[in-house]
Amino acid sequence: MNAAERTQGSFVHPLSDVQSSAIGPGTRIWQFCVVLPGARIGSDCNLNAQVLVENDVVVGDRVTVKSGVQLWDGLRVEDDVFIGPNVTFSNDKFPRSKSPPPTFAPTLLRRGASLGANATVLCGVEIGAGAMVGAGSVVTRDVPAGELWFGNPARPHGPAPRLDALDQRPERSSL
Amino acid sequence: MNAAERTQGSFVHPLSDVQSSAIGPGTRIWQFCVVLPGARIGSDCNLNAQVLVENDVVVGDRVTVKSGVQLWDGLRVEDDVFIGPNVTFSNDKFPRSKSPPPTFAPTLLRRGASLGANATVLCGVEIGAGAMVGAGSVVTRDVPAGELWFGNPARPHGPAPRLDALDQRPERSSL
Amino acid sequence: MNAAERTQGSFVHPLSDVQSSAIGPGTRIWQFCVVLPGARIGSDCNLNAQVLVENDVVVGDRVTVKSGVQLWDGLRVEDDVFIGPNVTFSNDKFPRSKSPPPTFAPTLLRRGASLGANATVLCGVEIGAGAMVGAGSVVTRDVPAGELWFGNPARPHGPAPRLDALDQRPERSSL
Repeated sequence: MNAAERTQGSFVHPLSDVQSSAIGPGTRIWQFCVVLPGARIGSDCNLNAQVLVENDVVVGDRVTVKSGVQLWDGLRVEDDVFIGPNVTFSNDKFPRSKSPPPTFAPTLLRRGASLGANATVLCGVEIGAGAMVGAGSVVTRDVPAGELWFGNPARPHGPAPRLDALDQRPERSSL
Repeated sequence: MNAAERTQGSFVHPLSDVQSSAIGPGTRIWQFCVVLPGARIGSDCNLNAQVLVENDVVVGDRVTVKSGVQLWDGLRVEDDVFIGPNVTFSNDKFPRSKSPPPTFAPTLLRRGASLGANATVLCGVEIGAGAMVGAGSVVTRDVPAGELWFGNPARPHGPAPRLDALDQRPERSSL
Repeated sequence: MNAAERTQGSFVHPLSDVQSSAIGPGTRIWQFCVVLPGARIGSDCNLNAQVLVENDVVVGDRVTVKSGVQLWDGLRVEDDVFIGPNVTFSNDKFPRSKSPPPTFAPTLLRRGASLGANATVLCGVEIGAGAMVGAGSVVTRDVPAGELWFGNPARPHGPAPRLDALDQRPERSSL
């Protein structure tokens, strides 16, 4: 583990800018990430390279965040959530430059939810436990627990697959 | 403002690579950004972390550019524009590797326009003053001033909301 | 070429983290990129800033990869491919945190294919030689050689344009 800094059991790559000390043990944060001081991140998470986490963000345990994702103020991420590459959140329904809303609309990702690559999630939405959102989808309303949704706008397409088979699968590789 | 460089009233984070000196006062550029030497950026702008600006780009005043955005050659951005996270521009209608067009198709974002999170904007398009593009949309043609468009391809859905109420909203937070 | 490292005829920007030595001559890799040790990249490629390449990835010659793109394990990219900005790949059809599939589904980009800005490509797909995918599209199945596809999900829209005219176009600029 040369060229790396290990604090309190977590791994923070020296090419990232992690300003929070509330990073759980076993969590790894890779190159060119930015994590602001107020963020709280649980244990055994993996933040791939080029991720940004704002201040008013809480992330649970065993969460995977792939590259190109930003977690904005108001986002809550429960345990075991998967956030695919370039998944995009928002926290202002009608954004205008230099004119934020009085409070940011909260977005909630429930335990074990999975967001496919490059999905877009509008603010104020709740993604239910174990729900799965297909790659490239645009989520404009709440997704119930255990359902598979995809499309633009995302619509229900039956139950989310493979939910029961998770424990049979091996550990994800290092990055 | 320790661990930071302040030049001519602008703030350029030391973990970015800003090669242009045409950065207006009050403008902030954050971590892991790249700004090439020919770019011109106005005053009181905010470029979030992980943004790239090419050379033949002009950005007005009070413009917000969220993370994961690239401003390519040929883009013109007027005052007060909001560009959401992972919004994606292009400057070649039919790109092929190593075969750029003789001139890049210009894209124009008029004053006060707002592009929602992860929207895609084809080159050669003009987004009218105060227009709003919904998150995850794909803009394939000009959007008239003051209209709300969304979808893939984006279509008109009436007037853009909240345009008149902007002055009542407080200042956006630092990042 | 000050503030830069040149090894074996390739150019690797000092603000990137390139761990592979299998980088062909004439290839340029820009700021804030991450390239893991197992990746193999051909000659005369251009990886824009803020790109990530995993280990089990093979890239041919004269390939362009724009900013915000990640090439995940299992991806194969033949010669002369164009990958637009924020194009997003995946390598697990039903991803769950900490539960990867036994093997990653391979994705194949055939010679001269072009992926438009912010397109999403599901894993296990083959993009045929010279095919073109429109900006913002979501590719859910194989795209035959020489065809133009776009939309969500992407559908065929006739032959890919300009394929024959490529040799008449000048060299792409440096970034």
